Amino acid sequence: MSRTSLDHFNCSLARTADILGDQWTLLILRDAFYGFKKFGQFQQRLGVAKTVLSNRLTKLADAGIMERHPPNTREAEYRLTDKGRDLFPILIALTQWGDRWIHMEEGPPVGMIDNKTGNSIQEISILSSENQRLTPSDVTFIPGPGANSETLQAFKAK
Amino acid sequence: MSRTSLDHFNCSLARTADILGDQWTLLILRDAFYGFKKFGQFQQRLGVAKTVLSNRLTKLADAGIMERHPPNTREAEYRLTDKGRDLFPILIALTQWGDRWIHMEEGPPVGMIDNKTGNSIQEISILSSENQRLTPSDVTFIPGPGANSETLQAFKAK
Repeated sequence: MSRTSLDHFNCSLARTADILGDQWTLLILRDAFYGFKKFGQFQQRLGVAKTVLSNRLTKLADAGIMERHPPNTREAEYRLTDKGRDLFPILIALTQWGDRWIHMEEGPPVGMIDNKTGNSIQEISILSSENQRLTPSDVTFIPGPGANSETLQAFKAK
Repeated sequence: MSRTSLDHFNCSLARTADILGDQWTLLILRDAFYGFKKFGQFQQRLGVAKTVLSNRLTKLADAGIMERHPPNTREAEYRLTDKGRDLFPILIALTQWGDRWIHMEEGPPVGMIDNKTGNSIQEISILSSENQRLTPSDVTFIPGPGANSETLQAFKAK
């Protein structure tokens, strides 16, 4: 598969899409959050070619999202780093959107429960500083502190 | 690009990854939330080949995420549907992760402001029914109402 790198974009979404914008990568991460750690487990669950899986795990390790323990053996475990665990809200948001729009008739295949209360977790939403739920039309994008000249120009041109 | 369809998976994440697990698709959606609507605008902003852009827009339309208005002219606008607008939390979560882990030194290239208060929106997080922030270890996955026999088996085997 030929891919264009997006890491020259002055945009957090583009840089993140460069790493996560791949179907197998997202499923590997899902299984990592389910607690799977071994190459063979990922391979069996996903039914993906070994070369593809190996490529994606290497990419995740290079991005600092997963780590091999110990680093250089066949039986290594692939574990989420702090950076990887911080992807949890993204994975949950993707799942909940699928629950709402793809599995709406039969209901969610998988439920997500807060261990402490046994209740379902909330649907992920965008909240204002005052905890109000926001829609796309409630939010404005502005150049941030890390905007480069190209980004500033793009905002002026809008 | 050859892709394996994931739409046989009994999993909302897999089904969603099948649609969104692609770098260009995510960037087209970003630009749609920025307010861009024309083929030429997407093409110019992303610097992507026309055939690739056309393929991704068709896929987004087929998935009910974007609609062409009017449907069959060269100057059509591509607009987000309700299903598409509901992707906003996913796009924001991807962006904020990039802000935290990729653009941490120079700061976010783009800020996101609540129109009403002028304050930044909150970082997206997973909340319990009692509004407590949850980490991955606070959450358990269980078979949901839409679980098929394969999914139930996978949970038993864990």
